[in-house]
Amino acid sequence: MITQINNKEPKITLVGAGPGDPELITLKGVNALKAADVVLYDALVHESVLDYANPNAIKVYVGKRSGEHSYGQDAINKLMVDYALNFGHVVRLKGGDPFVFGRGYEELDYAAGYSIPVTVIPGLSSSISVPGLQQIPVTHRGLSESFWVVTGTTASGQISNDLYEAARSKATVVVLMGLGKLEEIVKLFQNEGKHQLPVAAIQSGSTENEKLAIGIVDTIVELVEEKKIKAPALLIFGEVVSLHPSFQPIKDFYKALNEEF
Amino acid sequence: MITQINNKEPKITLVGAGPGDPELITLKGVNALKAADVVLYDALVHESVLDYANPNAIKVYVGKRSGEHSYGQDAINKLMVDYALNFGHVVRLKGGDPFVFGRGYEELDYAAGYSIPVTVIPGLSSSISVPGLQQIPVTHRGLSESFWVVTGTTASGQISNDLYEAARSKATVVVLMGLGKLEEIVKLFQNEGKHQLPVAAIQSGSTENEKLAIGIVDTIVELVEEKKIKAPALLIFGEVVSLHPSFQPIKDFYKALNEEF
Repeated sequence: MITQINNKEPKITLVGAGPGDPELITLKGVNALKAADVVLYDALVHESVLDYANPNAIKVYVGKRSGEHSYGQDAINKLMVDYALNFGHVVRLKGGDPFVFGRGYEELDYAAGYSIPVTVIPGLSSSISVPGLQQIPVTHRGLSESFWVVTGTTASGQISNDLYEAARSKATVVVLMGLGKLEEIVKLFQNEGKHQLPVAAIQSGSTENEKLAIGIVDTIVELVEEKKIKAPALLIFGEVVSLHPSFQPIKDFYKALNEEF
Repeated sequence: MITQINNKEPKITLVGAGPGDPELITLKGVNALKAADVVLYDALVHESVLDYANPNAIKVYVGKRSGEHSYGQDAINKLMVDYALNFGHVVRLKGGDPFVFGRGYEELDYAAGYSIPVTVIPGLSSSISVPGLQQIPVTHRGLSESFWVVTGTTASGQISNDLYEAARSKATVVVLMGLGKLEEIVKLFQNEGKHQLPVAAIQSGSTENEKLAIGIVDTIVELVEEKKIKAPALLIFGEVVSLHPSFQPIKDFYKALNEEF
């Protein structure tokens, strides 16, 4: 039996911190941070977000960055429950939204096994907000009636099978964690004959490190190299990308080219 | 020429208010409201969100509710630009996220025609946050590697063609504005043989009027009637819905049934 060192009721709040900009967290998320005894936070959470927390709260970095010491999911689950049992209210602060490839449900489920009540406070998913901040709408009348958000990296390390279907569909396709598989993903769209479909790659959206590459399926690999886009980054495939102002010269170029031949 | 009655620079900020709960707006959204000279707001925006605005700001309701007097999109575009030219900073406050079936890009584009600078502040889309608040994760390892968000009502009044493909896919399918077409949408999933796929319908998610119906493809129409679910509501089709606690008895029932035959 784990003994409690205080008399606070254990509870856990899963909070989505949003895409990066510390002002893009919700009021409810800030209020949870103010009330927290412990904050467990990820690599994708901007350090300034921690300034909203009670100064006496224990802050624990459990992030995963390649090449760094980091905790596995099991270790995070255990830490979260231990801190709740020993210190009371744990805020588990995650980048984006906890349920968009965030493994939030695994944490919720683990806590439920200890009968610790869990509350969820959603966050802005980068899948919608990062294109939006670049004024690329994931839906737009006449261009897109849906958007499909897919992970580029599944548990097995492969690209998701859903990406084959997504490449065939008319949806705006947003790929998270797909930069390392960009060439493979691009081939899926090329196999569907979508060589000139507009594509954007956005690194560290909403932060001071934001970088954008914008082109078409056949040029995006080269552009991403040229602009030195690194993870974390997302990819947007779809006609809506053509609404971005920097797409206009590309459109003009291909229009001229198509008229010529 | 429209004459300005003050010397403030016209500008427009498109702000997503989130799914309903006034605490689910971002800090950045609140700061924009505090700085606004005018707020144009929609039907889906909770009235309490307006309390964040400068008390001297002009507040204009431009919502669209069936059976009420309301503005068309053209009228909203014109009002927005007129107010910006005459009063300075207009916050255009929209339910959810401005670019998820919000026609936000049309407003941005119209303002650009008058050379008025537009900033976008994303909001929590109900498509992710409303399931999340019910602790239904749109993605979960082993159950879903993607989610597809589709409108139930297109510009032509028909269901989106994308829904046919979505019903065939392995994605978690979230349908916004689809309640009025529920029977038609359910048929698409039945045609794919997905009679026992878990489904949830959630009305007014995150607000005091929230209502939930949870079942499977073959029972959801009856359940929605029984629970008197009305618009605004969203639908979630996918195995992830089975993670909701109230799905457990349904699972047990069908397990017993399948063993019997």
